[in-house]
Amino acid sequence: MSLNTRSWTDPETGALFVVTGASGTGKTTLVQAALTAIPGITFSVSATTRPIRDGEQDGVDYHFLDRETFMSKVDAGEFLEWAEVYGNCYGTLRAPVEAARAAGRSILLDIDTQGAAQVRASGVEHLSVFILPPSMDALRARLSARGTDDDQVIARRMREAHLQLSECGHFNHLVVNDDLASAHHQFQAVLVAELTRSSRHPALIKRFTD
Amino acid sequence: MSLNTRSWTDPETGALFVVTGASGTGKTTLVQAALTAIPGITFSVSATTRPIRDGEQDGVDYHFLDRETFMSKVDAGEFLEWAEVYGNCYGTLRAPVEAARAAGRSILLDIDTQGAAQVRASGVEHLSVFILPPSMDALRARLSARGTDDDQVIARRMREAHLQLSECGHFNHLVVNDDLASAHHQFQAVLVAELTRSSRHPALIKRFTD
Repeated sequence: MSLNTRSWTDPETGALFVVTGASGTGKTTLVQAALTAIPGITFSVSATTRPIRDGEQDGVDYHFLDRETFMSKVDAGEFLEWAEVYGNCYGTLRAPVEAARAAGRSILLDIDTQGAAQVRASGVEHLSVFILPPSMDALRARLSARGTDDDQVIARRMREAHLQLSECGHFNHLVVNDDLASAHHQFQAVLVAELTRSSRHPALIKRFTD
Repeated sequence: MSLNTRSWTDPETGALFVVTGASGTGKTTLVQAALTAIPGITFSVSATTRPIRDGEQDGVDYHFLDRETFMSKVDAGEFLEWAEVYGNCYGTLRAPVEAARAAGRSILLDIDTQGAAQVRASGVEHLSVFILPPSMDALRARLSARGTDDDQVIARRMREAHLQLSECGHFNHLVVNDDLASAHHQFQAVLVAELTRSSRHPALIKRFTD
């Protein structure tokens, strides 16, 4: 599906999208296609305590922070969400997200249910989408079909998936990845619709009400 | 754009869409295409006091009511919106809309700003969309281009359009009909997105949280 979002679809105030889904639900595929198709939506640049690698740029790939700085920002409430993974901290700073939105750009966060719960708790205005498999059986079939993992790994992934999926009712929109074309369509519809929200277009309204 | 809205897009509780736009903004074209493309959304059957015509069926084309019955339903708050046009009353009864929604079907009301204001005042849950021209000048150009109307008629239509347009800020979503393909896309995105709202899918949520 090709999108042609013209001038007035570009909002004055961008949206913050939170997208979550269990492993094996095709979330990454859906997100990548949407970011390609819809202008004006990008990933946020995360902050992290892990060391910078060759070829990475501070402020482009990540905001690289030492642990002390990172934790002081956590304490100051400067993160919309953060988590520690294998000894390194990763998170989304509130300020660059707000700056992007104020400039009319929209931000998409691809995070798990714990991160999404933190964003909800932060009180920041956002729209959340959960990508669902058609059923737990369908998810098990997909994880098994990869063929590279033993039963124990699949069982662990299923437990993790169930933990994630049990939170889906807290999300604004649900997209079931049954038929991939439909899932693409529905997911992109949620994003595009949010960009047409009247609260994002005060100058457009002013044009017709003055 | 072809839509393939599968099983789980069909909500358990349907949506009520209110669509408004000034004459000359292409609203009818957009609405007709959307109803063809998206399964499960239909016009409501209006009630009217005008006499039934040959070939019309009560309950299919309209709910035909005598004026006394119509007005008693107005007094009883049974209408979501109604208006008198050239001596006949037309309106949308609350009960058939709620019955359709409870059965998972969505209803689209193509009404003016006064009707939309009544729906807002009724407190019924709904999503409203205003179809906008790119500008007042563009609207004037479109109305003039029809070529069949004299300046006085065009001037009157512009005044009416301005009255309608001045209310656009009260609507949830704004779709600018600048490029027609984009307008189709954005309008249908608003409708499809609303059908994926998690509150419409309690059984789907239950499937993953039990």
